[in-house]
Amino acid sequence: MRVFLLFCTRFSLLCEIKGKHVMISKNQIKNISALHQKKFRKELGLFIAEGPKVVDEFLHSDLKIVEIYGLENWVTKNLLLLKKLNCPHFIATEAELTRISALQTPNEVLAVFKQPVYTEKEINTKADLFLYLDGVSDPGNMGTIIRMADWFGIKQVFCSDTCADVFNPKVVQSTMGSLARVKMLTKDLSEICSLLNIKEIYGATLGGENLYTSNLSKKCVLVIGSESRGISANNTKLLSKQISIPQAKGGKTESLNAAVATSIILSEFFRQQNFK
Amino acid sequence: MRVFLLFCTRFSLLCEIKGKHVMISKNQIKNISALHQKKFRKELGLFIAEGPKVVDEFLHSDLKIVEIYGLENWVTKNLLLLKKLNCPHFIATEAELTRISALQTPNEVLAVFKQPVYTEKEINTKADLFLYLDGVSDPGNMGTIIRMADWFGIKQVFCSDTCADVFNPKVVQSTMGSLARVKMLTKDLSEICSLLNIKEIYGATLGGENLYTSNLSKKCVLVIGSESRGISANNTKLLSKQISIPQAKGGKTESLNAAVATSIILSEFFRQQNFK
Repeated sequence: MRVFLLFCTRFSLLCEIKGKHVMISKNQIKNISALHQKKFRKELGLFIAEGPKVVDEFLHSDLKIVEIYGLENWVTKNLLLLKKLNCPHFIATEAELTRISALQTPNEVLAVFKQPVYTEKEINTKADLFLYLDGVSDPGNMGTIIRMADWFGIKQVFCSDTCADVFNPKVVQSTMGSLARVKMLTKDLSEICSLLNIKEIYGATLGGENLYTSNLSKKCVLVIGSESRGISANNTKLLSKQISIPQAKGGKTESLNAAVATSIILSEFFRQQNFK
Repeated sequence: MRVFLLFCTRFSLLCEIKGKHVMISKNQIKNISALHQKKFRKELGLFIAEGPKVVDEFLHSDLKIVEIYGLENWVTKNLLLLKKLNCPHFIATEAELTRISALQTPNEVLAVFKQPVYTEKEINTKADLFLYLDGVSDPGNMGTIIRMADWFGIKQVFCSDTCADVFNPKVVQSTMGSLARVKMLTKDLSEICSLLNIKEIYGATLGGENLYTSNLSKKCVLVIGSESRGISANNTKLLSKQISIPQAKGGKTESLNAAVATSIILSEFFRQQNFK
């Protein structure tokens, strides 16, 4: 890996000095494409982010940038920032971007970042509402939930090890940059509860108390279960209350999408704390 | 098309009579794969649905089934229903299902249905809340919104012609069967408003009244804008009120996903009408 990075840095300098486009090597394409897979992301501690909006948010965050591949226009427009960050950058053609991208339609720029690692020490135990994801396996749902946590001011989200990988490109893209602000930590729910010393553990289920008429505690952990199996049996035992979104009369669908259900519940928490 | 259907029916009978697997022809694969594209869906008035859950919901609805391709297990389990529906059915291998499927991971069964066509006459103008989608272009968002409309008892959803195609396979799959119950109609907002004779036209925007403290009218049209551009300038002129989801202090993301924003607003309408 060290050799790979060194190579990239030298290569970047070359691009910059000569001021012209140099083909990205097969080896580079192989190395970046490897980051589409969880195994290699974990091994290298890296992940990719794409598109001007997400990359820009990440470049202005505490995340550590490793290198950037952008279309000439994007690189030219962002050259000052890239130099300020001392960031190895490569001018890519559209065809090259297509080869390294995890998107169906590549979007101007792909950046490689180091995965941030958070420990228990960094958890703000004084926060009010904590979110725990138990087996949320769809990357789009996971990313959308991280984005809405950011909207509702939740700074840390915990996950079971059965959730989608936080650094899966689809998760990263769905967060729309919120992954730079929300701290993600994988831990068992029981550990989280004793760490936070919280007794109110709410679970979103299909047969619980009516969300809208429940008195929702200001300080609690909200557990969201898997799209297909709900909250695991072990974690269900830890719940102090189960809450449900009532269905309208005449409503016929069996359930709501996991991200949608989470958003409705977080919204009601937020309303009860601020606008009741 | 007539020849295609006739061929399918004969072929199906053959499968059934002989009780053994017969290869699906190249022509059939070509015809079904064509339905992945809007152009051919529109031309033929057909669409595909996949997976046991969605197909089962559709088979028990008013939708008109054209033909079914299922793994042997699925067909055996559903043979009585298929015969009752007089439905041409084919036993497919996993490889064949992969070739005709629009999913990354095909799931036991693919069915071809006729697109239902709704006219103004079928709109229940006495309903309370109507949803209008103005340029919602992501198929996943569109399908998720149709599913939540079903949850909240909204039986008809209107769209601008700039929205994703309702019968796009990704829309169909995200509705999880709700497309069989929610009537979709493409029309201009101005036409819908005069048709319904409603004066309360609410728009979800980023700079409107606080959703939680707004008195939301029971009878209104809620307009949801495009993911990137919001509500069009023409439709903005028709709004009687703009409503927004306030962001928490310390919340940093620019916006919420369109389906998430819709779910939060619909949830608050539902709460104010039923649990205030």
